[in-house]
Amino acid sequence: MNIVVQGLGEMGASLAMVLNQQHDNRVIGVDAKAVTRQAALKNNIVSEVTDDIVAVAGQADVIVLATPVSIIKQTMKILSKMLLKSHVIVTDTGSTKNEIMAIANSELQHVAFIGGHAMAGTHKSGVAYADALLYVGTPYFLMPNPIGKQRVNQLKKILAPIQAHFTAMDVTTHDDLMAMISDVPHIAAFALMNAAVKQLGPSEGFGQYVAGGFKDTTRIAESDPNLWTDILLSNKASVMANNQALIAELEAFNQALISDDVANLTALIHAAQTSRQRLLGRENND
Amino acid sequence: MNIVVQGLGEMGASLAMVLNQQHDNRVIGVDAKAVTRQAALKNNIVSEVTDDIVAVAGQADVIVLATPVSIIKQTMKILSKMLLKSHVIVTDTGSTKNEIMAIANSELQHVAFIGGHAMAGTHKSGVAYADALLYVGTPYFLMPNPIGKQRVNQLKKILAPIQAHFTAMDVTTHDDLMAMISDVPHIAAFALMNAAVKQLGPSEGFGQYVAGGFKDTTRIAESDPNLWTDILLSNKASVMANNQALIAELEAFNQALISDDVANLTALIHAAQTSRQRLLGRENND
Repeated sequence: MNIVVQGLGEMGASLAMVLNQQHDNRVIGVDAKAVTRQAALKNNIVSEVTDDIVAVAGQADVIVLATPVSIIKQTMKILSKMLLKSHVIVTDTGSTKNEIMAIANSELQHVAFIGGHAMAGTHKSGVAYADALLYVGTPYFLMPNPIGKQRVNQLKKILAPIQAHFTAMDVTTHDDLMAMISDVPHIAAFALMNAAVKQLGPSEGFGQYVAGGFKDTTRIAESDPNLWTDILLSNKASVMANNQALIAELEAFNQALISDDVANLTALIHAAQTSRQRLLGRENND
Repeated sequence: MNIVVQGLGEMGASLAMVLNQQHDNRVIGVDAKAVTRQAALKNNIVSEVTDDIVAVAGQADVIVLATPVSIIKQTMKILSKMLLKSHVIVTDTGSTKNEIMAIANSELQHVAFIGGHAMAGTHKSGVAYADALLYVGTPYFLMPNPIGKQRVNQLKKILAPIQAHFTAMDVTTHDDLMAMISDVPHIAAFALMNAAVKQLGPSEGFGQYVAGGFKDTTRIAESDPNLWTDILLSNKASVMANNQALIAELEAFNQALISDDVANLTALIHAAQTSRQRLLGRENND
């Protein structure tokens, strides 16, 4: 099977590397940078390289778009005007999905498109960080357009060697889930850090006093501002609703405190404790 | 020097153990449980034991109260009616300070009382978890009553072997600091967990999808409900004000989102990122 992977960064190269090791696969890498293409070829991450997806898309059985979201959207529009194999599956690895799925449902509606979002990846970027184990055990969401729906199991089988934990869902469910388990926790960490500085002055001062709790709770506040501005705006409606849900829960604490409501305060904390204990199921050690 | 340590749990026994190793010290342990007293004596955590502080307080140069806060308050009242050495220093290890300092300023105003709060301790409790390294490098706040003020340096010298990072401050500054760096982060973790369950259903369900960010941000939501109900109520005014400051910062995110204010959103995240990076100074690896 011919698999075209565009974008040989950490996400794309790690996926390409595993698929290229499968006996029946031939992975063709597409990347704008010559040095990246050379490194990918030299390390057997791919079997063939090019800088132009138009030259190779027609022979692909699967196309994986693993560039930044803005390039994924451009490439989808290019692919929509090409003659592709009739059974081709196009997928991507963009973390924000509603714009991509809108294009998949309009301009690419004649192609089996299955949007992908793996909750994998580190802070590192580039082909040098290709890692055959990057996806092992990580949640990997699949969101098909109408034609893509009957091809989800086939794509799962093709991607099975990366050993991710695949789940198909619609894009609204995905976006609401991401808002609550990823976007709002980031906002909470940013807001907690900003509130602390407002109340106590620069973090260089009070930092000497903080313990593990503050460190854990604010760890993801170190995330990239431009990346997270894009992520939050691209999922704006759901993020705002879920942020409001968090604010309501914080207000419930102040309500219980102002009325010295011991029973309610204990119940709020107990509910949180129980939910956190059950969060990780049997691997409850993190 | 005779040092009386009442309460040979993790905090008290760890402190006693280090002080008892100093050549000039004789540590007398006070604990209600016979099995604890025996273990402390057998492991050289203390040099002598008793179940009644009244029997030994009169010969003490330093008295360390390391029981739960309710017992500390009772013991302070007992000590207020005893004839103690004129140069005695009384200190404690209770994590909530305003009630203790109120007693220190009224009923114990004739004694040098220096409230203590070490940001040390694990989830374990009991003499079996005595650890000579428990306090090494941890923030340790000292809050003197008026007579205690000129004795702070002396107490620092006596406690120096535990190698904590001592800082003297008044109780209001301490309580505001704790509200922002410990109490409100706990509320944030509880509230985030409760909001997630409200939006997504039981955590057994969505738990399979969460990544490191959600896990980090909610880790301290597993804290004990009764303990944290007490802590939050004992510092109620400051906790509510700082929780409100967090709510205001969360609302600033929704305000920037609803108006598509990219510049403001990026600025909010960038401020948080920079403050978090500077939080831990040179040991910036956590």
